[in-house]
Amino acid sequence: MSKVAIYDTTLRDGAQAEGVSFSGVGKIRIAKCLDAFGIDYIEGGFAASNPKDMAFFKDIKKENLQHSKIAAFGSTRRANVPVGEDAGVKALLEADTAVVTFFGKSWKLHVHDVLHTTEDENCAMIADTVRCMKEHGKEVIYDAEHFFDGYKDSPEYALRTLKAAAQAGADTIVLCDTNGGMLPDEIARITAEIIKAVPGSIGIHAHNDSETGVANSLAAIRAGALHVQGTINGIGERSGNANLCSIIPNLILKMGMECLPEGRLGKLREVAQFVSEIANQRLNPKTPFVGDSAFAHKAGMHVDGVRKNPHSFEHINPEAVGNKRRVLISELSGASNVFLKAVEMGLNVDKKSPEVKSILKHLEHLEKNGYEFEAAEASFELMIQKLLKSHKPFFNLEGFRVIVEKRHKDEPCISEASIKLTVKDEEAHTVGEGDGPVDALNQAMRKALTKFYPSISDVILRDYQVRILDPETATAAKTRVLIESSDGKQTWGTVGVSENLIEASWEALVDSVEYKLLLEEKAKKQ
Amino acid sequence: MSKVAIYDTTLRDGAQAEGVSFSGVGKIRIAKCLDAFGIDYIEGGFAASNPKDMAFFKDIKKENLQHSKIAAFGSTRRANVPVGEDAGVKALLEADTAVVTFFGKSWKLHVHDVLHTTEDENCAMIADTVRCMKEHGKEVIYDAEHFFDGYKDSPEYALRTLKAAAQAGADTIVLCDTNGGMLPDEIARITAEIIKAVPGSIGIHAHNDSETGVANSLAAIRAGALHVQGTINGIGERSGNANLCSIIPNLILKMGMECLPEGRLGKLREVAQFVSEIANQRLNPKTPFVGDSAFAHKAGMHVDGVRKNPHSFEHINPEAVGNKRRVLISELSGASNVFLKAVEMGLNVDKKSPEVKSILKHLEHLEKNGYEFEAAEASFELMIQKLLKSHKPFFNLEGFRVIVEKRHKDEPCISEASIKLTVKDEEAHTVGEGDGPVDALNQAMRKALTKFYPSISDVILRDYQVRILDPETATAAKTRVLIESSDGKQTWGTVGVSENLIEASWEALVDSVEYKLLLEEKAKKQ
Repeated sequence: MSKVAIYDTTLRDGAQAEGVSFSGVGKIRIAKCLDAFGIDYIEGGFAASNPKDMAFFKDIKKENLQHSKIAAFGSTRRANVPVGEDAGVKALLEADTAVVTFFGKSWKLHVHDVLHTTEDENCAMIADTVRCMKEHGKEVIYDAEHFFDGYKDSPEYALRTLKAAAQAGADTIVLCDTNGGMLPDEIARITAEIIKAVPGSIGIHAHNDSETGVANSLAAIRAGALHVQGTINGIGERSGNANLCSIIPNLILKMGMECLPEGRLGKLREVAQFVSEIANQRLNPKTPFVGDSAFAHKAGMHVDGVRKNPHSFEHINPEAVGNKRRVLISELSGASNVFLKAVEMGLNVDKKSPEVKSILKHLEHLEKNGYEFEAAEASFELMIQKLLKSHKPFFNLEGFRVIVEKRHKDEPCISEASIKLTVKDEEAHTVGEGDGPVDALNQAMRKALTKFYPSISDVILRDYQVRILDPETATAAKTRVLIESSDGKQTWGTVGVSENLIEASWEALVDSVEYKLLLEEKAKKQ
Repeated sequence: MSKVAIYDTTLRDGAQAEGVSFSGVGKIRIAKCLDAFGIDYIEGGFAASNPKDMAFFKDIKKENLQHSKIAAFGSTRRANVPVGEDAGVKALLEADTAVVTFFGKSWKLHVHDVLHTTEDENCAMIADTVRCMKEHGKEVIYDAEHFFDGYKDSPEYALRTLKAAAQAGADTIVLCDTNGGMLPDEIARITAEIIKAVPGSIGIHAHNDSETGVANSLAAIRAGALHVQGTINGIGERSGNANLCSIIPNLILKMGMECLPEGRLGKLREVAQFVSEIANQRLNPKTPFVGDSAFAHKAGMHVDGVRKNPHSFEHINPEAVGNKRRVLISELSGASNVFLKAVEMGLNVDKKSPEVKSILKHLEHLEKNGYEFEAAEASFELMIQKLLKSHKPFFNLEGFRVIVEKRHKDEPCISEASIKLTVKDEEAHTVGEGDGPVDALNQAMRKALTKFYPSISDVILRDYQVRILDPETATAAKTRVLIESSDGKQTWGTVGVSENLIEASWEALVDSVEYKLLLEEKAKKQ
């Protein structure tokens, strides 16, 4: 098996993504996570760029990483500045890392239009910087910026820049598709040509602007590259960097390459979720391999097929990457979906029992009326438990009233809700205000219930979605509300449907709270 | 230039995506949009699956599409059922489309474990169905499900199934990577082998489970496939289908292929946004080519480079796909696009006048606050006319009150709205009931206004959509309401945004009515 080195640049190139910025603590936590996962190189930041990055290089030394080498990032010396006097080069050395990675120009366009220097001087800048770093005992990774564009423009010159780096002693030369515009065929062809012409280890650094970032990386590796750069979840500027969370499982499971220590691939989803959490970004459910929907089956035929033979509708075993199969309860699904779901929930039902039949019948009825349980598993579980008579309500609603008033055209609306309910025999009658009618109702309900069930105050509503089901009938249409709730440990989805938006929201709010109380009951029983 | 046929399956395979389901009206709107864009084939739905899809095939005929052919989707006849008696085959014919697409099995595993039939019968099922459809004068597209998996397992058998389809007269044979597990190299090799072995047009249908859906499609095309299936924005089950919004620009701009009528590529972003709006999904800003971040530059060096020479940090000209460069310090919105739209609307504005500046400034402000005018041109026109002071309101709102009451947990909610407004100096004070708060408000407003403007009674609301803009803040989130109205002759869209759903709906309702009155005024003047 060939070994491919994995080089993560989440903390440097990934931090260029719109909306992403890491704290100092966050960077250390990600580095530790990547080390435990078995990533070979972690690029910690731009050595010259800001004090936060320099602090990272200092702090990470205390962490005693087990596997990963830390790399500091920078550029070649500037034009016409002796290498020993260049501020960037000095900063790279100050970072005091075992590995340094720096970029230089391969494309004449950039040498002339961006650097405003000569082609000879550009080569000297590369060679001088490599030599200087080698003299300081560094492992040197040279990133040939815009290499593919440069090579297509002038193969001779682009190659000359690489040879300057190789002859000066660079350990790895990385071909960068900085603008992300290449397609896999070009990457494969050019990488193969370079591997013939330049001695030593060749790497690939791809972006996703053509939506081929992963394929481009794999094409270079198939052509002989032994080093691949990317980011966790493909975060990065514009459309992102090449996504290591897809490159790694493709390399291991499909191309038979070695790139992680034995047995670590099963942590992939955990790593992806951890990094997206720290980056304060929600992982897109569609994300291949690691997303919530990556192994979710909706079509009845597919579900049936998966049950008969998982391999028949799944490209890999979800557990290989720490993910799991999900069966979506939806209008397109048949009986087998529902049964699998009930089993998945640990409900003790037999496939042919009258209870299962009545669940199916009720479900069909609900779905016809616009319910959808694929994002509302908590409501689904409550529904089943109500049907199996094992659910007793935690409170009784007496009634509620919601008022939205606009007193003058230039004044904002006021929303107020009052609610009356009983718990056992005690009554609560409360009123709440909010930004809108549903918010007001939510406030009033919480006021009423926290008195009896204090743990409800831990529950926050993380997501609220409204879908109009038969929009042709316009404002008289049916409304489906989906709510995602969390108590900091668990997350659950609930659903409500009604022609009345307020009533639909109420249903989903009640399920949200009841499911929390159910979780608590379960925990007590254990 | 080679011509590649584009086959869109957003309305069928795309609808398998978690969280996506299209309304009947939504499907028609998407089909019209794809037709105007120049997509060759539009797969409208599963012929046998549900009445909604069958209604689509009927309704779309009235729309006189200019470019696209509509395809109905289904499967081969079942095992051991004569083709003339198979319910699915009958449904395919009933759909009464020029094109039919159906899938059959190529993989022995599926023939045995899923269909439980013989290899011979499977081939007969394919051939019989093709022949039957050709006898009925259909253009036949045969989708060879799981083709690549099947071919890797048994090349002889997989090929035999294709030959059965080809010999029976299939017009196009599509190789499907149903599980999405293939990598581009395998796709290229196998597609090339099939093209040698099977006469006629070969197509590709890829999924994105390996994050190589686009690259896989391009690899097949480079190997000689002349037909490519995918969805807008890559929506679809699990990690999605191959994304046509990336395949199309790669084909045209990078591979020199022809696949859209001349001059349409600039509409790409508009199409992507329209479909994601109708699917009630937010387009991921990172999306290559069409996303908000696809040409957004954050890194200082990149911004500087782009300023010196755009080509230096951009793989294509953003305008080629209707997108634009963004520099992330200032969050500027689509100003020049919007100006073009104002001109398109026949508004008499000069590009450099102070009025235009103030429109642009106001628009920027509105967009920052969540307004979006792509599907709400009526609101856009009203907004401009208000700013140009050429709009006098048709009525003055004094105030309204909406009450939603649930008097007992087993009784449905009651919704009532009262409204007070003046027209000139006359006052109207009315009350309305409805299925929900917005419907009640709509009823009350109509009661008040028809007295003064009888033509309002012609206006029906055809579509009502609610979008939560910052769902993380849950029920206190901002809400955008889109309403589509029609008076039987014209159709127009309006928008409202507020933290309060009722207020957002009110805004969109008022614009809907005012636009109708404006149309009437214009008609009188002419």
